[in-house]
Amino acid sequence: MLVTLRDCPADAEIISHQLLLRGGYIRRVTSGVYAYLPLMWRVLNKITKIVQEEMDAAGCLQTLLPQLHPSEPWKKSGRWQGYTAGEGIMFHLIDRQQRELGLGPTHEEVITTIAKDLIKSYKQLPITLYQIQTKFRDEIRPRFGLMRSREFIMKDAYSFHIHETDLRETYKNMHNVYKNIFKRCGVDVVGVDADSGSIGGASSLEFMVTADSGEDLILTSSDGLYSANQEKAISIPSDPNTLSKGDSKIINTPNASSIQDLCKQQNIYSDQIVKVILMLAETDEKKKQPLLISIRGDQLINEVKLKNVATNKIGKSLVNLEKITPQLVEEEGLGEFPFGFIGPDLDDSILKNAKTWEPNFLRLADETALGINVFVSGANKIDFHHAYMEWKALSRLPEKVDIRAAKDGDRCVHDPNEKLKQCRGIEVGHIFQLGTKYSEALEASFTNEKGVQEPLWMGCYGIGVSRLAQASIEQHHDQFGISWPISIAPFEVIVVIANLKDDVQVKLAEKIYMDLKMESIDVLLDDRDERAGVKFKDADLIGIPFKLIVGRDAAENKVELVTRSSQNKETLNADEAKKILSNKIFANKT
Amino acid sequence: MLVTLRDCPADAEIISHQLLLRGGYIRRVTSGVYAYLPLMWRVLNKITKIVQEEMDAAGCLQTLLPQLHPSEPWKKSGRWQGYTAGEGIMFHLIDRQQRELGLGPTHEEVITTIAKDLIKSYKQLPITLYQIQTKFRDEIRPRFGLMRSREFIMKDAYSFHIHETDLRETYKNMHNVYKNIFKRCGVDVVGVDADSGSIGGASSLEFMVTADSGEDLILTSSDGLYSANQEKAISIPSDPNTLSKGDSKIINTPNASSIQDLCKQQNIYSDQIVKVILMLAETDEKKKQPLLISIRGDQLINEVKLKNVATNKIGKSLVNLEKITPQLVEEEGLGEFPFGFIGPDLDDSILKNAKTWEPNFLRLADETALGINVFVSGANKIDFHHAYMEWKALSRLPEKVDIRAAKDGDRCVHDPNEKLKQCRGIEVGHIFQLGTKYSEALEASFTNEKGVQEPLWMGCYGIGVSRLAQASIEQHHDQFGISWPISIAPFEVIVVIANLKDDVQVKLAEKIYMDLKMESIDVLLDDRDERAGVKFKDADLIGIPFKLIVGRDAAENKVELVTRSSQNKETLNADEAKKILSNKIFANKT
Repeated sequence: MLVTLRDCPADAEIISHQLLLRGGYIRRVTSGVYAYLPLMWRVLNKITKIVQEEMDAAGCLQTLLPQLHPSEPWKKSGRWQGYTAGEGIMFHLIDRQQRELGLGPTHEEVITTIAKDLIKSYKQLPITLYQIQTKFRDEIRPRFGLMRSREFIMKDAYSFHIHETDLRETYKNMHNVYKNIFKRCGVDVVGVDADSGSIGGASSLEFMVTADSGEDLILTSSDGLYSANQEKAISIPSDPNTLSKGDSKIINTPNASSIQDLCKQQNIYSDQIVKVILMLAETDEKKKQPLLISIRGDQLINEVKLKNVATNKIGKSLVNLEKITPQLVEEEGLGEFPFGFIGPDLDDSILKNAKTWEPNFLRLADETALGINVFVSGANKIDFHHAYMEWKALSRLPEKVDIRAAKDGDRCVHDPNEKLKQCRGIEVGHIFQLGTKYSEALEASFTNEKGVQEPLWMGCYGIGVSRLAQASIEQHHDQFGISWPISIAPFEVIVVIANLKDDVQVKLAEKIYMDLKMESIDVLLDDRDERAGVKFKDADLIGIPFKLIVGRDAAENKVELVTRSSQNKETLNADEAKKILSNKIFANKT
Repeated sequence: MLVTLRDCPADAEIISHQLLLRGGYIRRVTSGVYAYLPLMWRVLNKITKIVQEEMDAAGCLQTLLPQLHPSEPWKKSGRWQGYTAGEGIMFHLIDRQQRELGLGPTHEEVITTIAKDLIKSYKQLPITLYQIQTKFRDEIRPRFGLMRSREFIMKDAYSFHIHETDLRETYKNMHNVYKNIFKRCGVDVVGVDADSGSIGGASSLEFMVTADSGEDLILTSSDGLYSANQEKAISIPSDPNTLSKGDSKIINTPNASSIQDLCKQQNIYSDQIVKVILMLAETDEKKKQPLLISIRGDQLINEVKLKNVATNKIGKSLVNLEKITPQLVEEEGLGEFPFGFIGPDLDDSILKNAKTWEPNFLRLADETALGINVFVSGANKIDFHHAYMEWKALSRLPEKVDIRAAKDGDRCVHDPNEKLKQCRGIEVGHIFQLGTKYSEALEASFTNEKGVQEPLWMGCYGIGVSRLAQASIEQHHDQFGISWPISIAPFEVIVVIANLKDDVQVKLAEKIYMDLKMESIDVLLDDRDERAGVKFKDADLIGIPFKLIVGRDAAENKVELVTRSSQNKETLNADEAKKILSNKIFANKT
């Protein structure tokens, strides 16, 4: 069932996606949904086994939880709205009994419900349960094949503890388990500090396959001591160019609605400006809160940090966070806003006639904005700015928050002499210290040694199995196709019969095939009635680590052994070739 | 993670469901949806491996298809409406792009779409692809735990062929593969002729675990040559008591609206009566067709046969088929019907003012009804029947069909001296010769040896993996709990430390545990701080085939070996016990 394509499918943007399609590994069934064909299934199975072995060795117990989730526990944890309304990614449906069901994108709610039922006493703890299962996410923009698909295979584990110290212990162990898993799979992975996102919890670490096609931005220090997802990264901002004090005054700045234009026109530096951005946050209870955000003119907002801050300040889960545009203002029935010329002192009265919005701004300012004493900012009037403005002159100070995006070249917090460097990564794993967020919401408690009920401490640990399979191709391919690491290759060896009409070749190839099989080597026999060149190209495309060519020298019991990764070729006696293969493959397994 | 319950959960009606709950194998998450806990996962894994080994040995290739199905191929095959409207069991939803998606209950449409893409030439055939996966069915009445759940694990395979003969060959092979699988799983299974239902196709065979709790009725001949699901079973009806000719006349039969009352009142046999039943069939195109069905008074209608016949005669898929009741008649705005006194000559004019129904009956008569020349039937008037009626006197004859339910005691078709006997079964497998139904609908063709395009011939082959696990308990349990066959037990051996405070016991038990593990025996160590009696009871409840008790005799290196199925006990030297276990377990594996 070897069906390869010569041409590159038009809709595959990145190399790993192209190669999976061309090699006959996957087929698209609908947007973001793929069938795993036999070769792919074997790769997934190999990764699955490695994951199982390492998880089992760490004392975790395998289980399998439902994919259909009742809405009740999700409502109790407060995540139902956020996951199903607005930009929520949970597929959901109404069943025959008119009950709401979601298709599991993650299992904190379900496992906590079960833990509540099963775990009664500290004697049963700690315990870690895991599963390997297809998950669902109705992605806003599914793309890159298995990288961001709507149906994907994940290993998710959940640990339960008597206290935080024990949770930290398991979290640390799991970090090592993950290192082993990725190493055994033959991929280079770096661990980075990460935002905990909608999962929540105190601390989390992402595992990234570094690759230019990665969707995530990573910032690392060159001394290797710090790496973080850009969403989470911290840094020391550059020192601003001080603006000397002057008389506060309104200046005419025609058409200078951008920082760049304003700097040019007024001959100032961007770090002497306080930039003001208006955003609208919508909560899962449909409250719409306008935000007035100040940040230093040369800095950018990190939207993930902002979302976390806003959620925290408003005290509700957000289902949406978007820029306030002239169109939104008009739809809300408000008069025109002085966009491009807004200052931190914009009055709440501008919101007075709002139909659905709260009538006052939540005022936030990044540390960088509050760090400059004298600055230029908008005068809340088209074509006018306010020069020599000072915070202390404002009737109401905004709240100080950290919402600035760290960026390439910023100084590091752990060592100001180090600078952050940027690269791209593909997230293949994520571990979280959840704390008691879910156990408290779902009332999952245990009896401690003193007989007192306490909420369970929890951790959770994910690996994207199908994504890892594709990500490894980003690291292991060349102009001829895929070059799988031995441990996760669908077959370890492919025996190619050069000429099917030559009985000697056929017989020798079949003997070698059977012999290797007897040694538990995963071997594929290419006995298709095709030209030798086609078969060699296919073997390279699908990326089998070792190719044994049985050709003209078969009469002398000689074969050619080609190593896929190096393209190194050796002509060998057939028995010698088998021995070499057996040794190399066995060495990889231990 | 051994959590057993002492009491039987109230909502578990059958023993296997009770034992799975009590043994800590499963937990209900919502109606018809269960979490498989670690013990259960191990059972499912064992069955999965047996299925994989047997399928692989038969040359089938494993794959994994999506669970989210686009509606288009289901619409092309004509099954979307039947599966999503009315009593349709496919969960379905609308995604972010406003596209309809179904949750796969079966994969003919998806696999045929992929086959169309991958299979071009006869050279690639035959091929069989299979997967082991969670499927979804929004059951009208989920019950009996994993027996009829809404989320369940299935192995489904699909074969592709150049012609029918080759399909039949694979179908026959698969029959043997199934026998091996069930034998290796340690369950007694019988193959029975079955209705192909909504899957369709020429021929199909069900595999039934015989058990009193089974939802299916099976009819078998005592010579073992015939067995069929009652839905499909055929038989020879009893010879009717001839009613001698007489003058056709209307007779007054006050209150005799039932066959029984009529027989008593008029002193006739039920097989001298033609019973008339009115039903309403609704098609997937919302057409509502009234049916007027005649059958001999002593016989019952087989609803599956009737549905197949009606679908065939109407030429459309049905989404509903129900009895016409006085309430339905009233809702349709029609005058009263003479229920209980309807005859085969009921005139279509009674439907004249129908709002949504077709204004004429589809008239069908079972062979048994048409087989009696002179009979009594309703006179289409309350409290009146028509005696000495004859078919030839009717202006329009109904169509002759086979819709009669075969029943216990009927004579067999293959040998009229044999009688059918009835028993109950749990369907755990079903194999189908699909023919070209799906390949034609989805235009999946191949180029034959002559270069001509032909539709693929297809077969499909299912096994209910999670259902099989539970069904095996119906055959393997006693008053103490489950008694798993060795091949699918979660653990083969449980080592129980009688007294945890006795170091000698603990050390010996741990040594035995490690030694057995080294021999790749699946062994569980019960080192919980519980009374010995509790631990023994739990071991019996969860049904581990061998229990090794390390107790007082540990000092003399002696242990007690208890065989779960026979409760046979032997006191043995520890090394001897290990050897015996190793031999017994190894013997079972080969």
